[in-house]
Amino acid sequence: MRLLLTNDDGIHAPGLRALVMELKPDFEIHVVAPESEMSAVGHGVSLAYPLRVQAVKKQGTLFGYSVSGTPADCVKIAVQELLKQPPDLILSGINPGANVGVNVLYSGTVSAAIEGAFLGIPSVALSLNARYNPDFTFTARFSRKIIDYINEQGLQAGTALNVNIPALAPEQIRGVVITRQSLGQFRERYERRVDPRGNAYYWLAGEQPHEDSAPDSDARALKEHKISITPISFDLTCREELERLKRDVLPDLEI
Amino acid sequence: MRLLLTNDDGIHAPGLRALVMELKPDFEIHVVAPESEMSAVGHGVSLAYPLRVQAVKKQGTLFGYSVSGTPADCVKIAVQELLKQPPDLILSGINPGANVGVNVLYSGTVSAAIEGAFLGIPSVALSLNARYNPDFTFTARFSRKIIDYINEQGLQAGTALNVNIPALAPEQIRGVVITRQSLGQFRERYERRVDPRGNAYYWLAGEQPHEDSAPDSDARALKEHKISITPISFDLTCREELERLKRDVLPDLEI
Repeated sequence: MRLLLTNDDGIHAPGLRALVMELKPDFEIHVVAPESEMSAVGHGVSLAYPLRVQAVKKQGTLFGYSVSGTPADCVKIAVQELLKQPPDLILSGINPGANVGVNVLYSGTVSAAIEGAFLGIPSVALSLNARYNPDFTFTARFSRKIIDYINEQGLQAGTALNVNIPALAPEQIRGVVITRQSLGQFRERYERRVDPRGNAYYWLAGEQPHEDSAPDSDARALKEHKISITPISFDLTCREELERLKRDVLPDLEI
Repeated sequence: MRLLLTNDDGIHAPGLRALVMELKPDFEIHVVAPESEMSAVGHGVSLAYPLRVQAVKKQGTLFGYSVSGTPADCVKIAVQELLKQPPDLILSGINPGANVGVNVLYSGTVSAAIEGAFLGIPSVALSLNARYNPDFTFTARFSRKIIDYINEQGLQAGTALNVNIPALAPEQIRGVVITRQSLGQFRERYERRVDPRGNAYYWLAGEQPHEDSAPDSDARALKEHKISITPISFDLTCREELERLKRDVLPDLEI
């Protein structure tokens, strides 16, 4: 199986390296990742600027290619330009820190998987719920289960998997659940500060998700020490509202 | 009614100005927009860098505030920090160029509306299907119909409207349709070029949507010279795949 590995933390990030080390013995691995950290870039792509691609060696052998762009850029250029044949599967991660709830729209890790789904390739975003001192060993090992499953069963076209792993010893993890994205809002605020020249600037602070998190949600799964797998799609259409608008709006909206 | 206006082309863009000019006589208008062009930034937010906010005057009076960030940053800081009371409605645009199909995930214009939906505020992205020499007059006028509708009927919580207008004289427009996001892939490629120092670089080129576009899709509506209104949501969960995975996967994925 030919795997494309990417992330949003940059090609030198430990989470990506853990995945490469785990999978290299058994798979054909291609690494194409941002040259620098690209967290919270969302689904950005580079249109106004061209992309630079550079070979990156580690211990004298080719590790992969760095791209001067976003995670979505990396997937796009890897599939369209750099790989001779399209990959069978794309893995994005391992991200240190969960990507659950509305965070998935901000997440570069997840946007790489969504870009893969655009391109018709089964894609998986992998995140470990630990921002500090993450130990990626179990998550890297668990990725094999996901790869095996997709290899055998496939994924519905246009969907990707958003996988979040609790930062616990394997024996403390209480199983795997298929979840939906939780929709709770953040409690956010900006810190207003003043620079040495007396000018104000604002810094986003205090991103804690609300306590919503319905029983079958990604956020709840992590709270309950379970692995969360959410199938996600790039179709943003809201079907319920579509039906309502068709009934209610059209008469009001003649030109 | 208190309206927040933003865009992804920057605070000086003609599409935003057309909207302000049209709506200023009848609404309380607040403009908070990126200080420079931010197309295709997707749903990025600034975490690693702080935001600068500057008052922008036009003809001696306050026009709005520029923010050194993305469209999503603009909406977030406007609602959380800059406006004394939250807006009743957010309008993002008018973007020169359609935002249909998978483009909606790349679009800064649409991501501002999605950020508004996160924050619980009815939000609308407005795009005109003309990249060159756009005439925003009719689109700006049509925005009043959308505002009136939302004022009277509201929008389902968590949804935004993605509105695309054909670049035609009003009498040539053949009505309004409620649509779903088309899911066709692009035909994309990269142009490989060589810089004056002999190094390669790649530039994304040839973004033409496929001929898919189902009868009820946004792309088809524009082709048929109709105004397209798509209700969009920030819930990426794919319900069909969720049900399938619950049935099929769980037995295979024990830890």
